[in-house]
Amino acid sequence: MSTANRATPEPTRRPFIAATAEFAAGRDTPRDYLERCLAQIEALEPKIGAFVNLNLWGARAAADSATVRWKAGKPLSPVDGMPVGVKDIIETEDMPTEMGSPIFAGYRSGRDAATVWALRQAGAVIVGKTVTTEFAATEPRGTRNPWDLARTPGGSSSGSAAAVAVGMLPAALGTQVIGSIVRPSSYCGVYGFKPSLGAINRGGSMDGLSQSCDGALAATLADAWVMLREIAARAGGDPGYPGLAGPRELPAANQPRTLALLETPGWAVVQPAARQALEAAVERLRGAGVAIITRRDTPALEEAERGLAEANTISRAINNWESRWPLETLRGRPGLSQAMRERLDQAAAMTREEFERLLAERARIRQAYAKLAAVCDACVTLPAPGPAPIGLRSTGDPIFAVSGSLLGVPALSLPLLEAEGLPLGLQVMGFEQQDAAAVAIARWVEGVFAKR
Amino acid sequence: MSTANRATPEPTRRPFIAATAEFAAGRDTPRDYLERCLAQIEALEPKIGAFVNLNLWGARAAADSATVRWKAGKPLSPVDGMPVGVKDIIETEDMPTEMGSPIFAGYRSGRDAATVWALRQAGAVIVGKTVTTEFAATEPRGTRNPWDLARTPGGSSSGSAAAVAVGMLPAALGTQVIGSIVRPSSYCGVYGFKPSLGAINRGGSMDGLSQSCDGALAATLADAWVMLREIAARAGGDPGYPGLAGPRELPAANQPRTLALLETPGWAVVQPAARQALEAAVERLRGAGVAIITRRDTPALEEAERGLAEANTISRAINNWESRWPLETLRGRPGLSQAMRERLDQAAAMTREEFERLLAERARIRQAYAKLAAVCDACVTLPAPGPAPIGLRSTGDPIFAVSGSLLGVPALSLPLLEAEGLPLGLQVMGFEQQDAAAVAIARWVEGVFAKR
Repeated sequence: MSTANRATPEPTRRPFIAATAEFAAGRDTPRDYLERCLAQIEALEPKIGAFVNLNLWGARAAADSATVRWKAGKPLSPVDGMPVGVKDIIETEDMPTEMGSPIFAGYRSGRDAATVWALRQAGAVIVGKTVTTEFAATEPRGTRNPWDLARTPGGSSSGSAAAVAVGMLPAALGTQVIGSIVRPSSYCGVYGFKPSLGAINRGGSMDGLSQSCDGALAATLADAWVMLREIAARAGGDPGYPGLAGPRELPAANQPRTLALLETPGWAVVQPAARQALEAAVERLRGAGVAIITRRDTPALEEAERGLAEANTISRAINNWESRWPLETLRGRPGLSQAMRERLDQAAAMTREEFERLLAERARIRQAYAKLAAVCDACVTLPAPGPAPIGLRSTGDPIFAVSGSLLGVPALSLPLLEAEGLPLGLQVMGFEQQDAAAVAIARWVEGVFAKR
Repeated sequence: MSTANRATPEPTRRPFIAATAEFAAGRDTPRDYLERCLAQIEALEPKIGAFVNLNLWGARAAADSATVRWKAGKPLSPVDGMPVGVKDIIETEDMPTEMGSPIFAGYRSGRDAATVWALRQAGAVIVGKTVTTEFAATEPRGTRNPWDLARTPGGSSSGSAAAVAVGMLPAALGTQVIGSIVRPSSYCGVYGFKPSLGAINRGGSMDGLSQSCDGALAATLADAWVMLREIAARAGGDPGYPGLAGPRELPAANQPRTLALLETPGWAVVQPAARQALEAAVERLRGAGVAIITRRDTPALEEAERGLAEANTISRAINNWESRWPLETLRGRPGLSQAMRERLDQAAAMTREEFERLLAERARIRQAYAKLAAVCDACVTLPAPGPAPIGLRSTGDPIFAVSGSLLGVPALSLPLLEAEGLPLGLQVMGFEQQDAAAVAIARWVEGVFAKR
């Protein structure tokens, strides 16, 4: 494919954790690192539109403080000095939180969300607020895909994915309730990590639905893991959840014995090039010594696949009911999208009893999936039916991504595949509250693809 | 005891649900009902201090609308026209939400919490914001007990309990994470109903901790149940929870076969008069045909009692960790109490790993309690070691109330006992998500005490 429509000839991610050795050695500083990010923002933001607000003065001051600490050999954490973008449904004391809605244009909550508070405690540099769809739902807000400016970056964590894809930032916060981390990560060619239910404290973030999670979009697996793990160490998980557990550094690679090729309902709409890329990837993993099971040879997997057939329908209905508050309180205001009004209409037609049945159905599907732990170490699938589609009016089909959301399990999109000359992720899904194990397998998978 | 120190010679609750028959018959109106509440507020508020803010104009307008609907025979719900007080950690669009903290003096979130939104949808009349301790924790804010103005009304739902006790309101919203509904209900002689975990949507309320619940303080069991049930029908429960289930009207009385006399760790500090009142109550229930089991004759109950021995310690440590955000973000501001600073210091000394162990311990205690369902229909105990203590610097000992909070089960305080001439509740605790069953037993218990 031609590169004429790219934001930059060769989109390149910018790792941070790997760069800290240079800080420690005195050959680089967080301030210089930040300036390289800001130069990239200055060069490409007009084309991409990844940010809603920036706090350049605050970011430079924070980077200077980090520089002093690294020079003194006393960084606050491995992410001290890390420039981070914050999806604009997550509150920041120093910048508005507009939530992709004109209703909240300029709105300031006056506080940092739990994730942002923890990041600042760890020394991270909060650079700006990244574009989100309206209330992290479906209505897009104009961000373009750096690999092809005519295509969507995916959503709802649109700006986070696009910014990380071209090295404006090494990492950004995202949230996912349907496909909002995994899908844009796949479309933009970055690492996406949606942790288990409750693993990251969502306090001060507008993603309060029951299957929603805060997570990371990052330049490397290490950047994603270490950032989230440092957050969990300080702010914990959601109330009542233990929070992301495991080593503070990236878990060591772990070769699985068995991986399940999960088709998900996405299989019915998968594009030929994407399917071919996934099948080639699976063959490569098999060649590296992993047993691959499918729904055709493993009854427990067939059972889980059948459960997931309605993942999207069930998830959307659950989200609709759970969105009644606070969105119903905004119904009378100008600026609520037609899509959101329709969603509220659907919710208004539901009863508590119907919702209770949906929860029971979701619990049943989660049980069926949990049984897979007896037959495989993790699942692999696509994060999306193909590369980013053309057009900015839709953020693409979440059909492959929604299963991990409904299940509440850790889901990662690894930028290892391509189709039609565009990035395509390989999705690894683990088991609930076993995030470090899923990441260890993802790291091993990545290693297989690194070998030529 | 002398009545000289009372706010009013004979504190009297003001039922609403029972009064709606008069609205339907055209013999009374919601506006007139409201005016009687407001007259009582005007007469007694200077002595009691139950309110932080009132919206009299808004309340009268809402009551007039309800009057029109009742006259037309078309009330929106059984709580159409019900004057309600809202604990001041719960957001209201028309009044500030000050959270018992000078940091939030005059703070307006600009929206209604889920409970308040649902109440307005149902036609209820939001009269004012009731006094809460600082962030619903321990620091009291001056409300006095209507039965003895030198005594605490209990906390943290201090204003809600005091206002309902003297008929300023038929019902008010409260929240409980340790003992904040059950204890003030006992001290003030009102009905308190803390539902199961997640039964009432906490959106827009500052009680985000994992064992916290929104609930009701009310003039009658019917007022408590119907108000909460109407909320759940509209706003649901917390995300991921089915929400309060059961009939829309007060569940029919149900005679239990077996009740467990739960001592809880409170037994070690129970006051003689209170213990005597509880034992007499238990004898009365036995006399009405119910088998009573105790830890001495039932091993499963002994097991549950042993688990609950540390209920207060575990609950406070869990709350501390979960309070880090957002309270740590306020640490630098003047106006945070010394008690809250100490709590944050304790939390700062904890690790995620310690918190994970506390969650596991809580889960173990919940399992031990859940097994009681095989040997009894509900538990009875005191809500507090005695009547309201003298003094306004402490809201009293929550040692009897904390068990229901840790367990996440429905807990009710019924104003059926007395000690030293002051009100004392009888606490009924049920099983998780079986709220209607617990209320049906509470209603039967109440019936036993109604017989003279």
